[in-house]
Amino acid sequence: MPILIKMEEDKFSDWYHRIIEEAGLIDMRYPIKGMLIYRRWGLFMIREMQRFLEARLEACGHEPCLFPVLIPDDILGKETEHIAGFEDEVFWVTHAGKNPLERKLALRPTSETPMYESFALWIRSHTDLPLKVHQSVSVYRYETKHTRPLIRGREFLWNEGHSAHATAKDAAENVEEIKGIYSDLINSLLCLPFTISRRPDWDKFPGATETYAFDTLMPDGKTLQIATVHNLGQNFSKVFGITFDTEKKDKEFVWQCSYGPSFGRLLAAAISIHGDSKGLVLPPAIAPVQAVVIPILFKKTEKDNQEIIDYAKDILEKLRGMGVRCEIDLGDQHPGEKYYKWEMKGVPLRIEAGPRDLAAKKVVAARRDTGAKTDLAVQDLSKVFGIFDEIASDLRKKAEERFSAGMLKAKDRKSLDKCLGEGIVSTGWCTEKICADKIEETCSILSVGEAESTCVIGGKKGKEIKTAKTY
Amino acid sequence: MPILIKMEEDKFSDWYHRIIEEAGLIDMRYPIKGMLIYRRWGLFMIREMQRFLEARLEACGHEPCLFPVLIPDDILGKETEHIAGFEDEVFWVTHAGKNPLERKLALRPTSETPMYESFALWIRSHTDLPLKVHQSVSVYRYETKHTRPLIRGREFLWNEGHSAHATAKDAAENVEEIKGIYSDLINSLLCLPFTISRRPDWDKFPGATETYAFDTLMPDGKTLQIATVHNLGQNFSKVFGITFDTEKKDKEFVWQCSYGPSFGRLLAAAISIHGDSKGLVLPPAIAPVQAVVIPILFKKTEKDNQEIIDYAKDILEKLRGMGVRCEIDLGDQHPGEKYYKWEMKGVPLRIEAGPRDLAAKKVVAARRDTGAKTDLAVQDLSKVFGIFDEIASDLRKKAEERFSAGMLKAKDRKSLDKCLGEGIVSTGWCTEKICADKIEETCSILSVGEAESTCVIGGKKGKEIKTAKTY
Repeated sequence: MPILIKMEEDKFSDWYHRIIEEAGLIDMRYPIKGMLIYRRWGLFMIREMQRFLEARLEACGHEPCLFPVLIPDDILGKETEHIAGFEDEVFWVTHAGKNPLERKLALRPTSETPMYESFALWIRSHTDLPLKVHQSVSVYRYETKHTRPLIRGREFLWNEGHSAHATAKDAAENVEEIKGIYSDLINSLLCLPFTISRRPDWDKFPGATETYAFDTLMPDGKTLQIATVHNLGQNFSKVFGITFDTEKKDKEFVWQCSYGPSFGRLLAAAISIHGDSKGLVLPPAIAPVQAVVIPILFKKTEKDNQEIIDYAKDILEKLRGMGVRCEIDLGDQHPGEKYYKWEMKGVPLRIEAGPRDLAAKKVVAARRDTGAKTDLAVQDLSKVFGIFDEIASDLRKKAEERFSAGMLKAKDRKSLDKCLGEGIVSTGWCTEKICADKIEETCSILSVGEAESTCVIGGKKGKEIKTAKTY
Repeated sequence: MPILIKMEEDKFSDWYHRIIEEAGLIDMRYPIKGMLIYRRWGLFMIREMQRFLEARLEACGHEPCLFPVLIPDDILGKETEHIAGFEDEVFWVTHAGKNPLERKLALRPTSETPMYESFALWIRSHTDLPLKVHQSVSVYRYETKHTRPLIRGREFLWNEGHSAHATAKDAAENVEEIKGIYSDLINSLLCLPFTISRRPDWDKFPGATETYAFDTLMPDGKTLQIATVHNLGQNFSKVFGITFDTEKKDKEFVWQCSYGPSFGRLLAAAISIHGDSKGLVLPPAIAPVQAVVIPILFKKTEKDNQEIIDYAKDILEKLRGMGVRCEIDLGDQHPGEKYYKWEMKGVPLRIEAGPRDLAAKKVVAARRDTGAKTDLAVQDLSKVFGIFDEIASDLRKKAEERFSAGMLKAKDRKSLDKCLGEGIVSTGWCTEKICADKIEETCSILSVGEAESTCVIGGKKGKEIKTAKTY
């Protein structure tokens, strides 16, 4: 079975655009560039990610909240570095009905500024800390780069977490805790490999002191940034006046973090990294349908067929009763056509129920990822959960093998150029801006490490860096 | 216990505004008029309504979807009656970054128009029908009337359902099915009484052939419209070109419905109708915390207190293990202060665990709605579910009694004027517009019935109508 271990950019792009519409994930025909319609198959998986993440955030003390989508211009503009980073990308509401508004209102590009206005009201004392909130919403950025469905859009779905702490140490610990939660979302739930990089200063979130980014590797050898965690220090608390009374009754500014994964990008990564030439291959935990029952009808009399159909329906009900998200395909097509359709949609397990299965009180369970078939006795149907675990584990392993194969090293410019688009390339940089600019003519610098290395541009001594072509 | 059976308008308004902030439902200090911040206590209940409704809609064939928040002006304006109804209320995005957009974009006031553009692409044949979709989103309307938190805002949360059918009969049946689902949401889940009225023609949804509205009665005697169901006939399908091939291969226009409850208004109604002078009284099904465990500490030694605390924590874990949303209050306050706080927040059941309870291996369960206390043996803790059912049933009954008491009749103008603001008043109307206008100077006509009656204005023979002061 050909997997998407490495595909040329154009070929991958064709596959991707075809499968996201054919499988019913989204509809790209919405008449605004960079905005799309989420349909059931895509929306379900995003909601599963959201549920997983929200439960984890709330278990460690985050309160759910929901802020308005509109932000007054003076509040968005309060932190100068922050607004400088977003001002070219903001959608502005200027009119209501036929009348101009007194003050223009931004569609939220992110919610630091309006939230921190409220933090200043909510936080009074050290007993109010830590304050952690999260919301799952759409955000809006007028992307001028080429848009790509789920990967770079002008409206995208994410969860944003925001926290305030009494000390820098508490904020740093929160950064580590969130890294752990996002790692579980990406690897445990979605079976995806990733690397966490501390972004170089020029690529930090506007207003942050440190930005950590989660990158995964797409089949065309480019990295995709799927989540970020920012340590904001006291930058925002000083601008928004978020102070608290310490135990000693001193007034101090809080230390803050903000963080968010992009659900659309996570979905794009899961589709692309696990998918194959037949279409989607979905991790069972997020699959809208985890198993599809297909009755295999051979007999010519309707009575015989009805027996098989009843048997298949009974299997369906048994699986649903166990909590499996299960459907049955009773359409008129030939079984082969049905196989093709459900394979394309990525359903992890196909349950075939034919005359021989009925006679032996069993079914055949066929795995989407490997094609492997197993007989399952009706009294052992709960073994599907074990198969789901195996599928997840195998998807994770395969993806990690490919990810490891994409970790490359380049000692000089020539070998760097050769490696770009093949994965994440370790190389060297002298730490001078002029050389960074030259490196970034062909790729992005994901992170600057501590280890010593030789600059790939000028040959001076420098630091090891990680580079890649990025989305 | 004084319940809010009937309150003067100002007094009710004071109570309402105070309790929604004090209980932590929302924060009204957001710096845009008519927009507010949902906090945990309010957001949780809205999400529970949403979950209940979405499950019911999906069980009868609705597919979840999510459309962009922005709608191009030409698409919003396609159905003339529809746009005439909304054009004064639309927020317009006109700029991105520093540049004007080529075409202005509306923040969705409702989604008929963009969705039906897609329906025209999705529907080809009778086998594609019925098509039913739903989405839970915020919508935006620049209200010029006085805004009120959760009741009349410029951003509000709802679920909107949209359907397309092969025949007028199918559409009418869908209207009835949706009425049933909304009735369950309002009465089964939220324990609220309501009446369904077919709105007079001049008060229909812009573009609909029929509008059915769900109204409940607030403690100040005014009605609150909490949901609507519209039969759209073929108005939109003819404008958007939504046709299908019948079995006989003729092309026909689909028949459509659209419908939505306002989650904010439902929450406002549940708070106001069940609440009392101590604060919120929440139906157990939607309460963010269904039971709060309060350890009663009398003994002076820390060891004795620790025993009680351990016992209370054990009760907490047992209740959580059964699926009860349960918290424990280990704060330093006196039990009386804790009672006050959790009563104000509306938690349906307080579980007191003191030394005598520990000795007898029991707890005391105190109902928020009635104050009634029951001893519950530790091995019988699952009886809380029965108590929750009783609370729901009693809340429903009390609310229905008050609702019935608000069903009034008026034979002449004088008695109508006297009844207004006391409830829903049946009276008569000759069906001439001039008299309707006069009636609507002081109230709204909710519906026009079939029964004969005498016009309250001119004394001519006419139809029975239902009137009320409305929000």
